[in-house]
Amino acid sequence: MSNEPADLAIEFDQPCPIRDVLDRIGDQWSLLVLEALNGRVVRFNELGREIADISRQMLSRTLRRLEQDGFVARKVYPEVPPRVEYWLTPLGESFLVPMRQLIGWADTHHAAICRARRAYNAQP
Amino acid sequence: MSNEPADLAIEFDQPCPIRDVLDRIGDQWSLLVLEALNGRVVRFNELGREIADISRQMLSRTLRRLEQDGFVARKVYPEVPPRVEYWLTPLGESFLVPMRQLIGWADTHHAAICRARRAYNAQP
Repeated sequence: MSNEPADLAIEFDQPCPIRDVLDRIGDQWSLLVLEALNGRVVRFNELGREIADISRQMLSRTLRRLEQDGFVARKVYPEVPPRVEYWLTPLGESFLVPMRQLIGWADTHHAAICRARRAYNAQP
Repeated sequence: MSNEPADLAIEFDQPCPIRDVLDRIGDQWSLLVLEALNGRVVRFNELGREIADISRQMLSRTLRRLEQDGFVARKVYPEVPPRVEYWLTPLGESFLVPMRQLIGWADTHHAAICRARRAYNAQP
């Protein structure tokens, strides 16, 4: 495992694929953006309106990282004001399959995890 | 999303289950420990020998967190020296199913992700 920040470590292939993937796109914003892009082409401002509470800066950063990792494609139309559209690549689409299963598991079992923590912390 | 460290945030139910789960056990050591415990009862020292490069301190910390979250159970036998055994709870076993699918996805597609990063970074 590397202690380097993810943005410094992108030049070489990480030794641990799952850690590398989760470090980069295992955050809530990335998952919300991927879901919002599922099956359609969306403009930046539209994404910003649809994803509650995401700032323009965080949306921009999240999209850039997803594009950098090959999950999202982007096209800029030379209009005034410029129109920028985003969509999922086949890689991004394929990632949604296992990710949804993990999200489903987490939704189903999160209450049990929280109960376990409370019980553990209540131990003498 | 909370900015609190995971260890300070365990007293209340997190708003985002997937983030909460990945923050706590999405690291490589947790995944390796869960796999090493799959289907059997294992002693601390045995785990330490089987998981390459894990320090006693990191193994201890990882097991404690997994126990706290209800993924791992532990029994201490009052012997000299004390014998401590660990095994997966049904919650821990059920987590391995979606986690393995995500790990399989990451193993399959990690090279493509690395290629995408190199291509992105090579842009003018």
